[in-house]
Amino acid sequence: MDPCITLTTDFGAAGPYVAMMKAVIQRHAPGATVADLTHEVAPCNPGEAGFWIAHSFRYFPAGSLHLAVVDPGVGTRRAILAAAHDGHLFLAPDNGLLPLVLPESVPLYALAEDWPGRRDWPAPSRSFHGRDIFAPLAAALLRSQASPADIGPRLHDPVPAALPAPRRSGASVSGQVVTIDHWGNLVTNIDAALLEDIAAPRVSIGHRDLPLRRTYGEAPPGALLALVNSLGVVEIAWREGNAAAMLGLGRGAPVQVSAGG
Amino acid sequence: MDPCITLTTDFGAAGPYVAMMKAVIQRHAPGATVADLTHEVAPCNPGEAGFWIAHSFRYFPAGSLHLAVVDPGVGTRRAILAAAHDGHLFLAPDNGLLPLVLPESVPLYALAEDWPGRRDWPAPSRSFHGRDIFAPLAAALLRSQASPADIGPRLHDPVPAALPAPRRSGASVSGQVVTIDHWGNLVTNIDAALLEDIAAPRVSIGHRDLPLRRTYGEAPPGALLALVNSLGVVEIAWREGNAAAMLGLGRGAPVQVSAGG
Amino acid sequence: MDPCITLTTDFGAAGPYVAMMKAVIQRHAPGATVADLTHEVAPCNPGEAGFWIAHSFRYFPAGSLHLAVVDPGVGTRRAILAAAHDGHLFLAPDNGLLPLVLPESVPLYALAEDWPGRRDWPAPSRSFHGRDIFAPLAAALLRSQASPADIGPRLHDPVPAALPAPRRSGASVSGQVVTIDHWGNLVTNIDAALLEDIAAPRVSIGHRDLPLRRTYGEAPPGALLALVNSLGVVEIAWREGNAAAMLGLGRGAPVQVSAGG
Repeated sequence: MDPCITLTTDFGAAGPYVAMMKAVIQRHAPGATVADLTHEVAPCNPGEAGFWIAHSFRYFPAGSLHLAVVDPGVGTRRAILAAAHDGHLFLAPDNGLLPLVLPESVPLYALAEDWPGRRDWPAPSRSFHGRDIFAPLAAALLRSQASPADIGPRLHDPVPAALPAPRRSGASVSGQVVTIDHWGNLVTNIDAALLEDIAAPRVSIGHRDLPLRRTYGEAPPGALLALVNSLGVVEIAWREGNAAAMLGLGRGAPVQVSAGG
Repeated sequence: MDPCITLTTDFGAAGPYVAMMKAVIQRHAPGATVADLTHEVAPCNPGEAGFWIAHSFRYFPAGSLHLAVVDPGVGTRRAILAAAHDGHLFLAPDNGLLPLVLPESVPLYALAEDWPGRRDWPAPSRSFHGRDIFAPLAAALLRSQASPADIGPRLHDPVPAALPAPRRSGASVSGQVVTIDHWGNLVTNIDAALLEDIAAPRVSIGHRDLPLRRTYGEAPPGALLALVNSLGVVEIAWREGNAAAMLGLGRGAPVQVSAGG
Repeated sequence: MDPCITLTTDFGAAGPYVAMMKAVIQRHAPGATVADLTHEVAPCNPGEAGFWIAHSFRYFPAGSLHLAVVDPGVGTRRAILAAAHDGHLFLAPDNGLLPLVLPESVPLYALAEDWPGRRDWPAPSRSFHGRDIFAPLAAALLRSQASPADIGPRLHDPVPAALPAPRRSGASVSGQVVTIDHWGNLVTNIDAALLEDIAAPRVSIGHRDLPLRRTYGEAPPGALLALVNSLGVVEIAWREGNAAAMLGLGRGAPVQVSAGG
């Protein structure tokens, strides 16, 4: 598989916005493979976008470029950032998205107004930089006409991570719900690696306290359960039902994992 | 058109789940064409998935592989089934999905734990076999490195069909609503072939009794109607409106077709 | 980038309808590139479909064909229209969609029942001409086996535009909301070019009166604002919120732009 451009946006499926971005990418990088990661990020939620990219970019071939356009600050002077990490390229607005994907040591570069590669781009609109700046920039970077360090100066003080990191305190870990999937499962930012020292872990959410299971099938139908999901993070599910609706909880809900009694 | 892999899932559009499956397919079958049948199957509803595949697989080129991942039993010991029929390949969990697509005479084969083709796959997660088992298996089968009979033993007692077959009784046929489309039309499992002997057929649903029309346009705007749709099955529609909302009915609602008076 | 076929429909994502259309296109034009403009047009709303195509077709390469299937009259005797404009091809039912995309001077041609190119198509269903007529016709036109004028007679009295044009009266312009995007922004049919003579324009919608801003960022978070969006039309947005929900307004809501006091 050739390196590709993955797209992560909050554009949804209504309207030709994604199609226009892809058409611009093709104009600047004919034949490039473009993969839709998701376009259903909650509107204006860079944290969710960063979470999805962090947990899936390694499935794509080395050399791929991961472009995230969740950009409530479009048209203001917020920077446009590029970075390279682990053989992959990343491109996103400076809004706390990339710090959720990259280690702090990875340098971030801001696109300069006078970058020569922009010369043949039309003047950008004020409200759709995804189409007018990010798409041609992604195409240029994928074709290796530029490396992140070439497009502009290093940014030393990016907007901090859009989501707080989970906190370890004694034998418990506190985190939060980051997203809700199509089945209504509540997906948290608590990585399984944080639980290694916790014996017989139990997961608290809302007023519920649940043992950590290995599979959905270990809980009876109709029961709530917690497990480490396929992304490697703690998830709260309702076997054959919708946990988010049942608990009345959503993004941002606090979750704690502690040692069992 | 080259043979392709079609995907039918209940993953929805929120999150990178489909994208991860496609990336794994490309890693194992570079350049394979992948077609999205639908990812909006009602969560945990293998019957709906089987219905969609049964009514559309023949539009794809011979040699195509139809992969369905609607898999509430993921992580339990349910089998993973492959079959060949009419020049097409099929792959799905053993949960009553494939019996809706294939005649009973078609042999089903269960993937063996020790199938040699698995050797280069990473250890699967417990909750996303779509990415970790079905995707590389589909890629391997499409590339003809294996035929269904090669991947493991024949399964003689699969889970029976997830939906009951429509029943013929005298001059009437009983079935049910299988799915609701984007316009709110109620799509049933009653095939037009079952109506051949029924004179002036009338369709009963809820407390309504409707003549069978030939086109949407035969009913006045704002009227309910029944017709044989483009899939060849009976459908209840509301001309320029949403029949499911108007009738307050959904999947599983009983439908009867009888001879007119 | 090679010329492609873009698809604009009201089919949504539930069910294999789009996939079947694409499979038929590939059968008749192997290797053709197909781009999804959107499949989330409001059901039976040709005006919205025409609006999206009008504002995005120029992003695709010359020679592309733009196919719109929003077709409540399917199965009736409504015509199937083709046209060529500005190096692009267009295909849609005769229901007021194309007049929103093309200048009045562009001739429209209706597909003839006895067009020779139809000879190898199967008999069409009565309810899915997207798959059975539009898809093979689009494939044939893209491969240049036919030009619009070849497929049948010119239609001199097409159904008029499905949306009224905005009206200029003195120093104000009246239009309407055409669509609502994923963020809840209300997108109107008032083109920026109509505002050139209006000093300090203000936008009236519902009981609100808003100055025209240049970017989302010019309004404080939580505020309603109006701006010319990336499509070049007036849009009413709620900074980091959902304007449609907040105002309780939707498609068809009247909007007026007048000179400021």
